[in-house]
Amino acid sequence: MTRTLKLSISYDGTRFVGWQRQAEGESIQGLLEDALARFEGAPVIVHGAGRTDAGVHALGQVASVSLTCDHDTGALARGLNAQLPGDVRVTRVEEVAADFHARFSARSKTYRYVLRNAPLASPFERSYVWHLPERLDLGAMRVAAAALVGTHDFAAFQSAGSGVTETIRTITRSEFLLDVVDRDTDPRLAYEIEGDGFLRHMVRAVVGTLVEVGRGRRPPGSMEALLAGGSRADAGVTAPAQGLFLVRVDYD
Amino acid sequence: MTRTLKLSISYDGTRFVGWQRQAEGESIQGLLEDALARFEGAPVIVHGAGRTDAGVHALGQVASVSLTCDHDTGALARGLNAQLPGDVRVTRVEEVAADFHARFSARSKTYRYVLRNAPLASPFERSYVWHLPERLDLGAMRVAAAALVGTHDFAAFQSAGSGVTETIRTITRSEFLLDVVDRDTDPRLAYEIEGDGFLRHMVRAVVGTLVEVGRGRRPPGSMEALLAGGSRADAGVTAPAQGLFLVRVDYD
Repeated sequence: MTRTLKLSISYDGTRFVGWQRQAEGESIQGLLEDALARFEGAPVIVHGAGRTDAGVHALGQVASVSLTCDHDTGALARGLNAQLPGDVRVTRVEEVAADFHARFSARSKTYRYVLRNAPLASPFERSYVWHLPERLDLGAMRVAAAALVGTHDFAAFQSAGSGVTETIRTITRSEFLLDVVDRDTDPRLAYEIEGDGFLRHMVRAVVGTLVEVGRGRRPPGSMEALLAGGSRADAGVTAPAQGLFLVRVDYD
Repeated sequence: MTRTLKLSISYDGTRFVGWQRQAEGESIQGLLEDALARFEGAPVIVHGAGRTDAGVHALGQVASVSLTCDHDTGALARGLNAQLPGDVRVTRVEEVAADFHARFSARSKTYRYVLRNAPLASPFERSYVWHLPERLDLGAMRVAAAALVGTHDFAAFQSAGSGVTETIRTITRSEFLLDVVDRDTDPRLAYEIEGDGFLRHMVRAVVGTLVEVGRGRRPPGSMEALLAGGSRADAGVTAPAQGLFLVRVDYD
């Protein structure tokens, strides 16, 4: 009998080509498919909620898979972790309804982007933050971040070549977290954005634009016009991959 | 004119052969000596306060060096960081008295050892903690840790082959930090030990022994007899290098 499983996965994306299996290099999807195929005794396809890029991390990626093998979920989680390398951990395996699909059933996703805003980089964070030595205007960045909440056309924040033509998304939260903004004791800034879907490189383009606001190169009230204009060339640079974390995927 | 400089250094020890320059592989001492030699226009020797092993990290290593070049200390710090790889950062350069020696002038050193005591390892901490899935008895470990405070012969915690025959050291602090022991929200345990000197692999042998106490394989009151016996074979395993951090070196 076929059953559908929901996997929760955490990974350090540093050395991977990204979530998605590719012709060359190691992917998280590929590692999971290979490990699950050993339980199943046949090839399997794993669907991920978010296709994180090379170098992007996940605290709570979600994937779905159909299996016929009857191992209990705890044994599967332990067995997968025994096979997977240490930079990928399956944190939970649950049996779900047959029509569950990690990507299409998702109601919302939350991403976090971590900046280190201090003169000196930390040797322990090279793969997990974007280091910006110049002091950023957090108040201005907060105003700009808040302007993204709502239903908008996010074409201005989509990288070319994705093939996606429907670019309207609803953002329910876009803010700098309060608990990591005491810059005297911890110079990290964590930005979180939650929405029903994200275009290609959208979070990184948003962060790159917010950083330009923080540097005073763009007014905090300029986001509305950017959204309305819909031109990628008018938005900011794409922030580097290593500061980005897929935090959580929510389902009904 | 020759002047003596004190360097404060932070590094991720993961990929290094250790602090000390060796025939093969990259060392932190070697990188610093090579970078400083470019300022000096001649070979230099850098003395480190603690010779951390391969895989051991530093938040506050201290080194001393004699230079004739007259760059100001800020320019030296920036210039060194521009040359050094991102996993080694010079956090401060200060001019000090001519007789200052990072190792011989040190009054005390503080080391931290981080354990992750949870069923699952974190993919982000592989190089920075010792993962112990079995629940440890923190109360018992605290009792055992406290027994190390004072002036004792630590021969039981010294690895063979160091050549050191004077094994008496004074430990002023040996405790599990209170602020990271809420194991429901953060399953990390951080042990800190401060003393006037440490024998080869001493902190790691102490931690390996404390973990055996935490596992119930050794009574919490057994440390006194271990110290008195002076036999390395009676103490616990040497904890892995990657959980260890040289936190601070203090001078008069």
